[in-house]
Amino acid sequence: MLKKIKKKLLFTPGPLNTSELTKKSTLIDLGSRDKDFIEINESLFSNILKLGHAIKGYICLPIQGSGTFCLEATLSTLLSSKSRILILTNGTYGNRIIDICKKIKKNFLALKFNENESISISKIEKTLKKNKSISYIALVHCETSSGILNPLNEISSFCKKYKKKLIVDAMSSFGGLDINIQKNNIEALISSANKCLEGIPGFSFSIIKTKSLSRSKGNANSLSLDLFDQWKGFLKNGQWRFTPPTHSIVALASALEQLKKEGGIKNRYIRYKENYQLLIDGMERIGFECYLDNDLHSPIIVSFKMPKHSKFSFNFFYNSLSKRGFIIYPGSITNQKTFRIGCIGNINSKHIKMLLNAIRKTLLGMQIKYLSI
Amino acid sequence: MLKKIKKKLLFTPGPLNTSELTKKSTLIDLGSRDKDFIEINESLFSNILKLGHAIKGYICLPIQGSGTFCLEATLSTLLSSKSRILILTNGTYGNRIIDICKKIKKNFLALKFNENESISISKIEKTLKKNKSISYIALVHCETSSGILNPLNEISSFCKKYKKKLIVDAMSSFGGLDINIQKNNIEALISSANKCLEGIPGFSFSIIKTKSLSRSKGNANSLSLDLFDQWKGFLKNGQWRFTPPTHSIVALASALEQLKKEGGIKNRYIRYKENYQLLIDGMERIGFECYLDNDLHSPIIVSFKMPKHSKFSFNFFYNSLSKRGFIIYPGSITNQKTFRIGCIGNINSKHIKMLLNAIRKTLLGMQIKYLSI
Repeated sequence: MLKKIKKKLLFTPGPLNTSELTKKSTLIDLGSRDKDFIEINESLFSNILKLGHAIKGYICLPIQGSGTFCLEATLSTLLSSKSRILILTNGTYGNRIIDICKKIKKNFLALKFNENESISISKIEKTLKKNKSISYIALVHCETSSGILNPLNEISSFCKKYKKKLIVDAMSSFGGLDINIQKNNIEALISSANKCLEGIPGFSFSIIKTKSLSRSKGNANSLSLDLFDQWKGFLKNGQWRFTPPTHSIVALASALEQLKKEGGIKNRYIRYKENYQLLIDGMERIGFECYLDNDLHSPIIVSFKMPKHSKFSFNFFYNSLSKRGFIIYPGSITNQKTFRIGCIGNINSKHIKMLLNAIRKTLLGMQIKYLSI
Repeated sequence: MLKKIKKKLLFTPGPLNTSELTKKSTLIDLGSRDKDFIEINESLFSNILKLGHAIKGYICLPIQGSGTFCLEATLSTLLSSKSRILILTNGTYGNRIIDICKKIKKNFLALKFNENESISISKIEKTLKKNKSISYIALVHCETSSGILNPLNEISSFCKKYKKKLIVDAMSSFGGLDINIQKNNIEALISSANKCLEGIPGFSFSIIKTKSLSRSKGNANSLSLDLFDQWKGFLKNGQWRFTPPTHSIVALASALEQLKKEGGIKNRYIRYKENYQLLIDGMERIGFECYLDNDLHSPIIVSFKMPKHSKFSFNFFYNSLSKRGFIIYPGSITNQKTFRIGCIGNINSKHIKMLLNAIRKTLLGMQIKYLSI
C-alpha cells in the first residue's frame, strides 16, 4: 500500500516540504537517554535561542506534539490562579487560545477583531482601562487562517509601556520573519519544528523568560504539558522527561544547519517573499482575488476568495492539482469561502511557477479561460 | 556536526531499533489534510484494532506525543468527576499514573506493591471491599522499570466479576505480547508507536470502548489531550485536529506491514523471547544477576543488579559499550542499583550475541574475568 504514495509538492502552512537532506538525516535510531542525543538537543535549543535573539535570561523548552500542545503547555505553566490574560484574536488561531484558556480554566478576556482587520492598539488601550486586572496579553503573530501579519512590534512596545507580559504564538512566522524576542521583551514565544524552520513534525517549543518560568511551579494542571517540570527534567540530566521524537529532533538540527547555509532568517525571508510575490501576481493575473488587502499580508500563506465562476468546483480544482503533484490547503475563514496557498517550506520561485502553470491547466480543464470573482 | 553521529544498536525499551525499511518509508512529506494521508491513517488504526482483537465496539484514537501524553489523555477523557480509580502499582510507570491523576485532579486510590513483587488479586479484593466507590482499575501490563509482567488476564477476569472498568497501560507490551482486548473486556488500552510495533516515536494511541468514549464529553481539562474532541475531529473529516507527526504515521504503517510479514504478534513474541533467553543465559554465565525472579520476567526488558565487584564502574561500562556501538539503558528501581537491557525492536539473536561479546570484552578491559554480585 505504502509503495503507491506519490511524492507531491506541498503549498501548505506545515507540515510542509522539507529538503532531502533534512529527511535523510532521520535515517538513524538514537538512544533517547544517550549522550549523543543529549548533545544534539543542547546545541539545537541553543541555536533556536540565537535565532530569536533571546540571548540573556531566556530558555528554549521543547514539548512533544504539535504547536497547540506547546501553546497549551506555556499558558498552563505560566498563568497562575491570580493571572488574567487578554487574548487578541482575528482568526482561528487566536480563537484557539481562547479555547485553551476555557479548557484549562485560566482567567481570560477576549478582544475580537474581524478576520480581515488588523489588531488595533487603541482598542486594546480602551479594554485595558476598563480591566485593570489584566496581567498578560496573548497575540498570534501570523494568523495562518487568513495569512494576516499582526503588528508584533507595536504591540510589544505597548506592552512595555503598560507593563503587561506578552505571550506570542509565532507558530508559522518564527524562522521566516526576524523576531527580536529580547528587544521586544516577550514573556514567551511559541513555535514549531515543522513551519519556517523547515523540520518535520513531532514537537514544538517555547522560548520563555527563565525568571518567570522559575516562579511557575505548580501552575500547570497537566503532567505531560508542564513546562516547569520539563525544565527541571532537563536541568537534572539533560534528558526529556518522557520519550522524545528523536527523529524529528535530528531533522530540525539538520534543518538549522541548512538555514545557516541559506544565510539565516534574512535570506529565508527573501525567498519566502519572492514566493509570495510571484504567487499573488500570478494568481491575480489568472483572475483570483486575495481575501486580505495587500498591506495586511504575510509572506507565509495567502488566502484566496473562492471563485464564483459557474464552472468552478473547488473539489475538482483541489483533486486535479493533487493529481498533478501539487497540494494546496483548504480555507479557514468564518464568513467567507476561501482556500489557501502556502509560500513557506523548501520551495522557491521555480516551484511557484510550476504551481501557477498547473493551476492554469486545471482551469482550462474546467473550461475556464478567465475567472470572475 | 550531525555527520559525526555513529549508528549504534539500541537495547532500550523505545525509542528502539527500527528496520531500514521503516526509516526509509519516512522519506516523504505528506499533506496532513490530504486524502493520501487520511487513507493511511484509516488503514493504520483499523490494523491496530485488529492486532488487539478489538473488533467490535472499540475505536483506536491517536494522540501526538509520547505514551504518557496518551495515558494522560485517556484518563482525562474517560474519568468524570464521579469516577474513582484504583491504581495498581509496582514501579515507575504505575507511579506515573498516580502522578497524572494528582495533576489532572481525578479521584484515585493507590495500591502499592514492591517493585519485585507481582500484583496480588487478594489485596485488590480487600481494597475494593473497603472502597465501594471505586469504578475503575488501572494497571501497567509490563512495568518497564523492572521488566515485570503483571497478570493482565487474572486482573481482567477479576474486573469482570466485580464490574470494574479496566484501563491498561500496555505501552511496552502491545505488539510483542498477544492481548485480547475484547475478550478481556478492557475499557481502554494505551500503547505507543515506538515500542513493540517497532515504529519511530511521535505519537501514541488508545484503544477505547466507543460507548464509553461517547459519554465522555467535557471530562478532559485539556484541549490538546481531549480524546473526545480528537474523536469528533476524525468523525468530521478523517483529519487530526492539530498537526499530526506525518512521518511517524507513515513509519508505523510500514512497520505494521513488516509485522504482518514476520508472521504477526505470535512470531514477534517468539523472536523477543529468544532474545530474552539468550540475554539472561549469557549474562548469568558472565556473572550478572537478574533483579527479578525468573517467573516474573517479561521478554521485553530485563533489569540486572549492579555488580558490586571493586573494579566495576557502570559509567565506564556504559561508555565502553557505547563506543563499541551498543546502547544499554539505565536502571529505574527505587531501592536498588540496577541497569536494564531491552529485548525488543528490530534486533535478533545475532545482535544479542554481539552485545554479549562486547560485554565480555568490556569487562576484560576493566580487568574483570568473572563478576561477583
